[in-house]
Amino acid sequence: MSAALRNDDPGAAIMARLDALAGFTDEPGRVTRLFLSPSHRRSVDWLLDWMREAGMAAFLDDVGNVRGRYEGATPGAPALLIGSHIDTVRDAGRYDGTLGVALGVAVVAELKRRGERLPFAIEVIGFGDEEGVRFPTTLAGSRAIAGGFDPTTLAACDPDGVSLDKALRDFGCDPARIGGLAMTRQAALAYVEAHIEQGPVLERNAAPLGVVTAINGATRFRGTLEGEAGHAGTVPMAIRRDALAGAAEIILGVEARAAREADLVATVGRIEAAPGAINVIPGAAHFTLDIRAPDDAQRRAAVADIEALCAATAKRRGLKLEMTRSHDAPAVVCDPRLVAALAESVAREGHAPLRLPSGAGHDAMAMAALCPSAMLFVRCKGGISHNPAESITAADAGAAFAALIDFVRHFDPERFIDEA
Amino acid sequence: MSAALRNDDPGAAIMARLDALAGFTDEPGRVTRLFLSPSHRRSVDWLLDWMREAGMAAFLDDVGNVRGRYEGATPGAPALLIGSHIDTVRDAGRYDGTLGVALGVAVVAELKRRGERLPFAIEVIGFGDEEGVRFPTTLAGSRAIAGGFDPTTLAACDPDGVSLDKALRDFGCDPARIGGLAMTRQAALAYVEAHIEQGPVLERNAAPLGVVTAINGATRFRGTLEGEAGHAGTVPMAIRRDALAGAAEIILGVEARAAREADLVATVGRIEAAPGAINVIPGAAHFTLDIRAPDDAQRRAAVADIEALCAATAKRRGLKLEMTRSHDAPAVVCDPRLVAALAESVAREGHAPLRLPSGAGHDAMAMAALCPSAMLFVRCKGGISHNPAESITAADAGAAFAALIDFVRHFDPERFIDEA
Repeated sequence: MSAALRNDDPGAAIMARLDALAGFTDEPGRVTRLFLSPSHRRSVDWLLDWMREAGMAAFLDDVGNVRGRYEGATPGAPALLIGSHIDTVRDAGRYDGTLGVALGVAVVAELKRRGERLPFAIEVIGFGDEEGVRFPTTLAGSRAIAGGFDPTTLAACDPDGVSLDKALRDFGCDPARIGGLAMTRQAALAYVEAHIEQGPVLERNAAPLGVVTAINGATRFRGTLEGEAGHAGTVPMAIRRDALAGAAEIILGVEARAAREADLVATVGRIEAAPGAINVIPGAAHFTLDIRAPDDAQRRAAVADIEALCAATAKRRGLKLEMTRSHDAPAVVCDPRLVAALAESVAREGHAPLRLPSGAGHDAMAMAALCPSAMLFVRCKGGISHNPAESITAADAGAAFAALIDFVRHFDPERFIDEA
Repeated sequence: MSAALRNDDPGAAIMARLDALAGFTDEPGRVTRLFLSPSHRRSVDWLLDWMREAGMAAFLDDVGNVRGRYEGATPGAPALLIGSHIDTVRDAGRYDGTLGVALGVAVVAELKRRGERLPFAIEVIGFGDEEGVRFPTTLAGSRAIAGGFDPTTLAACDPDGVSLDKALRDFGCDPARIGGLAMTRQAALAYVEAHIEQGPVLERNAAPLGVVTAINGATRFRGTLEGEAGHAGTVPMAIRRDALAGAAEIILGVEARAAREADLVATVGRIEAAPGAINVIPGAAHFTLDIRAPDDAQRRAAVADIEALCAATAKRRGLKLEMTRSHDAPAVVCDPRLVAALAESVAREGHAPLRLPSGAGHDAMAMAALCPSAMLFVRCKGGISHNPAESITAADAGAAFAALIDFVRHFDPERFIDEA
């Protein structure tokens, strides 16, 4: 059934498109669509067809992005970019990434149906590499558009030994031309990405939509505490140096520190006690730490407090502490004008304009280096993603569609002309 | 060098015997002497020779124990039993078990050297199966002597599929006659076992010797907490149900509860968070719990408090708790008259008569079902055992020898004639 037949229920039409897209998979019975795979190729062709049907000039670019352009009233005008990604994790759901792409095409299809041309172009992008599953790189597509593609990553290989360079060529792309994909700020007015929340906040607030204020910065550590192993029956409590008990104190301290501030989150996701026997006092404990916040100063303060807490715990318990910072990425603050405009559209469509940070990474992180960027979150069931149980309702897809249509119609390009 | 040549330094003589015994191993370069193995067989013959040299009638019994009897002034008198085990864990030290056997033989050798006969017999026993490494049984030897051998364990097999029954027959034992090994209370006045401490208490107190008040009872649990897994970036702290954070609270609560009372110990030795990724909130946590005390009422009270603590923590955090009791063994209280007599001997030899519970299990646990039993602990370096780094000094071995000689000479059989 084509979307054109379902104008009475755009949410259902979008769900039908997403169901069709889920049929392109590298693993029968599961949704697995890795970057530059055969199923990615089939989804590219399908998306190009739909974009053209929706009135866009569409092509596959040299880094594997699907690009569709709907001209404004004046051909060649600067563009509002709307996009997300069409690659998936292994055994994925059917909404992560694809929802944002489908909403972009559906919005353009609706403009075409109404015969509307705006005072700016719209470019819809289906990025090819957001999940970073096949190659040890991520955001290759959005980084290329934003001018931040690192050509040394072309030599990176997938587990079968196929380089990104070769995979792109086999896909029909010319890696030598990726540098030329970088858009200018003059051509790109703004970037807006709709995406499932991948968290439970909207559901808990009975809100179908949310406006993202920032994509959280993140700091990660791997920590080790060393104490003294011993017989669980023969070493009195007073003279133990139990590494796991020290780690437990850190876990609770981390939890309490993060709970003190809204939007700050901190997680110990892995723990291991060594030697790890029921009758041996743990001589060492290994743990991970993941700290995220929408504000970098807030995150840095929390990281400093948590490092101090770890050090103090180790010292008081006579344990040796080693902490290795394995990841440190700044927050990306969404453009306040776009955030306000999206919130107004959400409110006009009758929903509470809930604002929240994004805890997960998105193409918008890369695109923010190019132009003002923002995101619209769509409620998903139980906050579950990266899983076949990923679920949204057609009504919420319809609400997102309506808010985006409203946003596009109210979008004032003059406010986003290059200020530089 | 034979022990007879080293009467000027009995500690050094005992160390030389233990070094010789360490040469009987199933694994070259390591000390591994499993029950009924070829190296066990060689150590049996060596021990029989030494016992006979020390003036004892010696034999291998039908459950694989080496037994040596030194008659008192009146042949056939009831016996004071002195023993420990000669089997080892894999890659063991050279003192765990063997020290107590060697001290027993050395004491008898000294009596013989002096031409002393006491108003009771001494029987020295080298038990064959204390560590329980080869077969899924333990204390087979001491249980047989005490009348507690379970004949159904004869069908138990080692990892190569050899049954205990067959292994005993191959060793020259007759499993059908194990029931007849049970001693009567009339024949067994008391049992005394010297053993390395396997803990750090004596070393911390600068005491070469300690008198064991009880062998701790132990209760073990396997616990699971179930919460809700989630994305470490997208789920606010306030709505998390982090199973690992709950486990951390339990670990600290267990530690604090045990620290409130002397001689009570409690340990979480294993922990696992599932799914166990740096960026995923733990949806489940699995942990072990080991609680020991020399007094059963004390242990039961601690277990009840810890169970309540676990339940309260789970309830407050919205977690599902499952606790499975995997082990529950009562404490074995050492005979107060023997404890007092050993303490007096230790004091007469010029050492502080430090009293302490045993956190580890020993043959004395089984022997206590037969007759009054007690243990003498010998200081070991760093509390380390079950490890090649296991270490004692010749001076401490000599101190134990002197205390045992004193104890035997002061032992009053009239106080230990069957009171029943």
